[in-house]
Amino acid sequence: MNRLPLEGKVLKENDRIALELREQYAAHGVLCLNLVSSPGSGKTSLLERTLELWPEGERVAVLTGDIQTENDAQRLRRFGFPVKQITTGGTCHLDASMIQRALEGWQLKDVDVLLVENVGNLVCPSSYDLGEAAKVVVLSVTEGEDKPLKYPSMFFKSELMVLNKIDLLPYVPFVVDKAVENAQRVHPGMEILKVSCLAGDGLTEWMGWLAARRERFRAGRGAAVV
Amino acid sequence: MNRLPLEGKVLKENDRIALELREQYAAHGVLCLNLVSSPGSGKTSLLERTLELWPEGERVAVLTGDIQTENDAQRLRRFGFPVKQITTGGTCHLDASMIQRALEGWQLKDVDVLLVENVGNLVCPSSYDLGEAAKVVVLSVTEGEDKPLKYPSMFFKSELMVLNKIDLLPYVPFVVDKAVENAQRVHPGMEILKVSCLAGDGLTEWMGWLAARRERFRAGRGAAVV
Repeated sequence: MNRLPLEGKVLKENDRIALELREQYAAHGVLCLNLVSSPGSGKTSLLERTLELWPEGERVAVLTGDIQTENDAQRLRRFGFPVKQITTGGTCHLDASMIQRALEGWQLKDVDVLLVENVGNLVCPSSYDLGEAAKVVVLSVTEGEDKPLKYPSMFFKSELMVLNKIDLLPYVPFVVDKAVENAQRVHPGMEILKVSCLAGDGLTEWMGWLAARRERFRAGRGAAVV
Repeated sequence: MNRLPLEGKVLKENDRIALELREQYAAHGVLCLNLVSSPGSGKTSLLERTLELWPEGERVAVLTGDIQTENDAQRLRRFGFPVKQITTGGTCHLDASMIQRALEGWQLKDVDVLLVENVGNLVCPSSYDLGEAAKVVVLSVTEGEDKPLKYPSMFFKSELMVLNKIDLLPYVPFVVDKAVENAQRVHPGMEILKVSCLAGDGLTEWMGWLAARRERFRAGRGAAVV
């Protein structure tokens, strides 16, 4: 981004809609998380494992964004939760108005957690607030430890980094400590979880993080909304 | 992309500069290739192997783009060829004016091949012509076979797909034939090379492709420039 004078206007309008969404989420008690990463880091795989392990009694819904194809929604629908695909048709990120349109027909009062899978892109989605409570950035160990330094805005704006594909660590020249150090450098105090969606490592911790985040959201909401 | 009326104007101006660059490359016999991919697919690693294996007597120069950091230029300088880093400071792609500025101080008559490494992003760089003779898209096997379908513009506009990290095939659920099929679906007749920059597979074929592309460029130039 940062390339057009008009960009400021577009972002301002986006922020307005994002605020509306955030207020609606607060009113209905919906924790919204915005999952971001490079293409192929494993956002959809993480969502598959998440829906598979989803705790009974908690209601989840998913919006999944892509430039083209309904593939991700098809992969995610088999778990029986509401899933909607947003096809951007060329746009490199989701924006708040796309979320607003996608939510038409859904009752937010029937949702506890809304998981939004952004378009695979480590740059532009960082500029577009979707009204989420937090961004979660997925980085896979095959991408190299330097990505937090190269895409600092995304890592700074994300509350949690899920370091995925750790089953591949024996086969790639990736130093976990270095990646953690780089993430903490652009975002001091950033939370980090090590996960393998394929082998199953770290998924208990991830589901635990989600449960704790939900609790924190509810507690905060109680305080804010009265 | 595709989201602002002003975008058309920006792209038109970009096309004007790209044309200037293309004419300069033609005048001086410089084959320019624009390497694109997701973050972490291995563009820099491919360039490292390329410079290592660079044939004597051919002159190569590299421009490497990133949002932040000079890391890639540092990795590439040790081979002794001219390398310049372009730091976009937030912009999610290289544009033709950045290339034009970066080339100031270099003599194009002293260059046979100019390799441009774009910002890691499978979306926006596809809209910005840099005056290159061809785009080369790098896809790593850890990213999934569906990427050509999800980012069709990039795969359609790239002459060659380098399928990288094939040393990891035993450890990831990636079906090469499916990826090839998807690439050919969005870009019938697309050339595809299987490579491992880590293990060295396919690098002879890659260097062979480069040599053939150079020959084709020279032959075409002879015809066009007279």
